[in-house]
Amino acid sequence: MRLSPAISELIRALRTLPGVGPKSAQRMAFQILERQREGGLQLSQALADAIARVGHCDVCRTLTEQAVCELCQDEARRGSGLLCIVETPADVLAIEQTGQYQGCYFVLMGHLSPLDGIGPEDIGLDKLAERISTEAISEIILATNPTIEGEATAHYIAELARQHDIATSRIAHGVPVGGELEYVDQATLGHAFSGRKRVQFD
Amino acid sequence: MRLSPAISELIRALRTLPGVGPKSAQRMAFQILERQREGGLQLSQALADAIARVGHCDVCRTLTEQAVCELCQDEARRGSGLLCIVETPADVLAIEQTGQYQGCYFVLMGHLSPLDGIGPEDIGLDKLAERISTEAISEIILATNPTIEGEATAHYIAELARQHDIATSRIAHGVPVGGELEYVDQATLGHAFSGRKRVQFD
Ligand SMILES: [Zn+2]
Ligand SMILES: [Zn+2]
Repeated sequence: MRLSPAISELIRALRTLPGVGPKSAQRMAFQILERQREGGLQLSQALADAIARVGHCDVCRTLTEQAVCELCQDEARRGSGLLCIVETPADVLAIEQTGQYQGCYFVLMGHLSPLDGIGPEDIGLDKLAERISTEAISEIILATNPTIEGEATAHYIAELARQHDIATSRIAHGVPVGGELEYVDQATLGHAFSGRKRVQFD
Repeated sequence: MRLSPAISELIRALRTLPGVGPKSAQRMAFQILERQREGGLQLSQALADAIARVGHCDVCRTLTEQAVCELCQDEARRGSGLLCIVETPADVLAIEQTGQYQGCYFVLMGHLSPLDGIGPEDIGLDKLAERISTEAISEIILATNPTIEGEATAHYIAELARQHDIATSRIAHGVPVGGELEYVDQATLGHAFSGRKRVQFD
């Protein structure tokens, strides 16, 4: 049986959402068309608006519709001297929700991955080097994911910080190895922050 | 931490989708904005298109962007004399996927629910009565959900069919009691069709 083209296209488009398989996409499409048309139109508009207006913060690279995001505009944070490096905007949100950190962020929007052709400039490390040279940063906290790529990226940034004589720490135990930061519960992530340890060079 | 308004609104709008909680909505929003902007725009357009163009079939009431849906236009099905009554368009799809049924459908778009003020005309039973009076129907197959409301609706339609002297059957074992038709696997649903039993009046 063929569904009408507009319904088929809606199901196909819904499947591009993460975690949405054929059966859920079908269920979503029917629910919208049967009884959530207003919600569906709002979603259509919200997608178009966000895609048109949201870009990257000039300072920390996170997603925002302002030139400089709210966190980067915060005087107290800028005066803290702390700079936390994360892979994604979702990681910033996860860390903010622990309430344990009051410093600034730098969002790589990915991690180093030479095999995929993703080098230092692709994750903004030129911009990070510039910040390290010009801002009064007392400590860099490496909060990349505890994966092979995340560790390699953290190591690269630790070397960069050492060249500028800036103390560097890596968030600690509590974050399960091989996992992704955004899925860690608040307590564990808070613990990882308070138990961070200084990167040692030998 | 407040996300920028356009991102917050996108997360809120995504949560209107069935089965999408706050965490998945956030994950979807970030994924779209970080690396699926084209897919996001296609979804925005597909939602607007489908909502503008999809209505109900004049004959069977299912969702379609044509005046009369493809199944209702099918000569062989119209000549079969079989009319299967289901609650939703998803049920039509589920039955079609069994490949065991080649007749016509009537889609209630719900079920009788006096407590919610949903009476016979709200689920199109006036239109169904008209079809029963004017078309050459040899058997009505009641495939409403095996829930209290679905059974009550089936019973109501069986009475309607009896008044017009039309044989009526109810799909049989295999469909778990209290479950919903659209989640039943194809084999079970096909079995329920071949094992349907005639409604007896005493
Ligand atoms: Zn920023
Ligand atoms: Zn139809």
